Amino acid sequence: MADRLRIALAGLGTVGGGVVRLLETNRELITRRAGKAIEIVAVSARDRTRDRGFDLSAFEWVDDTHTLATRDDVDVVVELIGGSDGPALTLARNTLGAGKAFVTANKAMIAHHGLALAKQAEQAGVALKYEAAVAGGIPVIKGLREGAAANEIGRVYGILNGTCNYILTTMEEKGSDFAAVLADAQALGYAESDPSFDIDGVDAAHKLSILSSLAFGTRLDFAGIAISGIRHVIAADIAEAQALGFRIRLVGLAESNAKGLFQRVHPCLVPTSHPLAHVAGSLNAVVAEGNFVGRLFFEGRGAGDGPTASAVVADLIDIARGEYGPAFAMPVDSLTVPPPASSAERLGRAYLRFTVVDKPGVLAEIAAAMRDSGVSIESLMQRGTAPDGSAIIAIITHAGPERGVADALERLSGSPSLTGKPMLMHILDL
Amino acid sequence: MADRLRIALAGLGTVGGGVVRLLETNRELITRRAGKAIEIVAVSARDRTRDRGFDLSAFEWVDDTHTLATRDDVDVVVELIGGSDGPALTLARNTLGAGKAFVTANKAMIAHHGLALAKQAEQAGVALKYEAAVAGGIPVIKGLREGAAANEIGRVYGILNGTCNYILTTMEEKGSDFAAVLADAQALGYAESDPSFDIDGVDAAHKLSILSSLAFGTRLDFAGIAISGIRHVIAADIAEAQALGFRIRLVGLAESNAKGLFQRVHPCLVPTSHPLAHVAGSLNAVVAEGNFVGRLFFEGRGAGDGPTASAVVADLIDIARGEYGPAFAMPVDSLTVPPPASSAERLGRAYLRFTVVDKPGVLAEIAAAMRDSGVSIESLMQRGTAPDGSAIIAIITHAGPERGVADALERLSGSPSLTGKPMLMHILDL
Repeated sequence: MADRLRIALAGLGTVGGGVVRLLETNRELITRRAGKAIEIVAVSARDRTRDRGFDLSAFEWVDDTHTLATRDDVDVVVELIGGSDGPALTLARNTLGAGKAFVTANKAMIAHHGLALAKQAEQAGVALKYEAAVAGGIPVIKGLREGAAANEIGRVYGILNGTCNYILTTMEEKGSDFAAVLADAQALGYAESDPSFDIDGVDAAHKLSILSSLAFGTRLDFAGIAISGIRHVIAADIAEAQALGFRIRLVGLAESNAKGLFQRVHPCLVPTSHPLAHVAGSLNAVVAEGNFVGRLFFEGRGAGDGPTASAVVADLIDIARGEYGPAFAMPVDSLTVPPPASSAERLGRAYLRFTVVDKPGVLAEIAAAMRDSGVSIESLMQRGTAPDGSAIIAIITHAGPERGVADALERLSGSPSLTGKPMLMHILDL
Repeated sequence: MADRLRIALAGLGTVGGGVVRLLETNRELITRRAGKAIEIVAVSARDRTRDRGFDLSAFEWVDDTHTLATRDDVDVVVELIGGSDGPALTLARNTLGAGKAFVTANKAMIAHHGLALAKQAEQAGVALKYEAAVAGGIPVIKGLREGAAANEIGRVYGILNGTCNYILTTMEEKGSDFAAVLADAQALGYAESDPSFDIDGVDAAHKLSILSSLAFGTRLDFAGIAISGIRHVIAADIAEAQALGFRIRLVGLAESNAKGLFQRVHPCLVPTSHPLAHVAGSLNAVVAEGNFVGRLFFEGRGAGDGPTASAVVADLIDIARGEYGPAFAMPVDSLTVPPPASSAERLGRAYLRFTVVDKPGVLAEIAAAMRDSGVSIESLMQRGTAPDGSAIIAIITHAGPERGVADALERLSGSPSLTGKPMLMHILDL
């Protein structure tokens, strides 16, 4: 490449605008650090007429995004369109196919098609980079791919969705219920009008699948992730957890050991002594445990135009410097395919919350189900009757195989004593 | 380079042993990640006969360390001897002079001679890497050099010395005085028999000078750092701080703005709402604030054989992958030399503690000195008399220019009312 790195930018939403502003604001220092100027030469988005609040007149506007892939005056295409398939994927394939570098913030596309794209990049000998796809501005892709590269990683986990963390910590502060906080977050623009990808854990799972591959040297396995979100967390769960010294966080967790690969996105009870318990608001955080380095903890802003643009441009600087290599830290064919590990034998404590009919015998029924499943109870709280006549029973189990708790819930399934689905959260005793 | 990266290892102490064990234990996965085998071919240390608890028979023993620099069968020299000058520096110069890559954990040498060595590496077109020199296993050199590279960094700060943090958090937990905890730490091997480099802040300052250069694109300026250590922190300081919602941490802080470059290593009062307040024991942590990414926080183990070896081998993997560039993120000649910024105009709150004669008028004398220096008092506590007849007065000031507090201490200097040197700690209101 020549004395400058020429960029085509596809997508001019919040993040695209952030990239434009960042490259302009920090132009001089980026040129010093990258060893050459990084310049946008062409941009493309759906609506040319929209006022985006920044000046696009210096860039060539391209109506057909797909032509960015093959322009002679472009070294790198930056994709900020989004969506796992469709135009983003076509652009990725065409760009790499044309032998140009490709940078994206698109976690869904990387989670689903990352290996095929990485293979294409390898064959073309060009960069495929996606630091912004996981945990926004936190350099955690680099942290795993390079910083912790000397280690066998046993476990990687973290808070990977800022919307969920904002909702959970706001519920904590205000004692509000999920639905009220979600509505507020939507009004403030912190949550999407269709929040399902965030609150049901899918977005966190996309990111976890990427971290997992980098940490363990395994093929991406999004389908292998057990996913549950925070939709059913109620104010009483937060209060019980707090009373017992825990905070509730949506945690994406991946473990690799002799039994195989275990991946789960799940609301967890995190002891206040654990650094994840102090990750507040919309922040993200990632923990990686290596056999020599021990526990590494990274925290920062996981979304928004500034942090995401920071990660996108860090990728561009790496490309300008010529400091890049295989997208998943090693050639795709070197990645392994471990068997999925079952949760049944995992040992741990759990939190169970039941909403029950307030009548004699209910507590005995629940206690019997626990006993018959071999689950030992560490603590149990029953709280007074709600307006609808139901009561709440919250249990912390002693550490035991997860199978036991699943069994107990199975035994209680369909019981007329329960007025709602029980809530199960595992305790992050790490 | 060929199908393997050939290493000469100088220094076989704790960290050297860690590197040997790491390369052996994680051999297979390192080869996958690096794209080639990383193999030690020669080792050198002072005493060949010492039993180090690991097998050296596979490596050629070299009596004269200096010959490692010019061996034909070596691609990279790893220096783990230590010391800012002497054999380590000679080895560095000779290795780079011979056109070979050089990896070191030696913060003192990088702080004092990093620019000259980086210049030599540039001229030879080889790698000079030193991830292990700052914050042990935490990839913070990489985090600043690459991860945050798109940002103008306004401030970088952190807990850079594990021994000090261990002492301070143990004082917190046990209510003990500094001397007692230091003695325990020495008995346990957590502190050196001559602990001055650690407890007087010099080690943290070496690291801060390196972070500062990377964050701001400035030339290393160790001499420009105002350094004070933790030797004069007493149990009462910890207790007063805790009562007011603070913890005491030795913080290395560097700021860059229009006034110039400000660098200081100083015990600070950190609000418990700040993530640095939760960094316990011998952990290290670094915060960087970028104009787009916001606040990034990295935490992990800052010393010890495993974490340090993890960082050394991460550097080797970067070299094996060919993913490296200028040691200070840009050519040495591009680094700027900002003027040093004075502390006088910095605004902030401060903690002042006086040990005083318990007699009428002392409080009035201190209060008058504050008033006459324009320092406004936010809170003041006076505690009962110690066995030696002295009392303790602890003050938190309102935010104001640091000059004011320095003035007040100057006014009180030599006063017969004071039975010891006053303690000044700034408050980390960031």
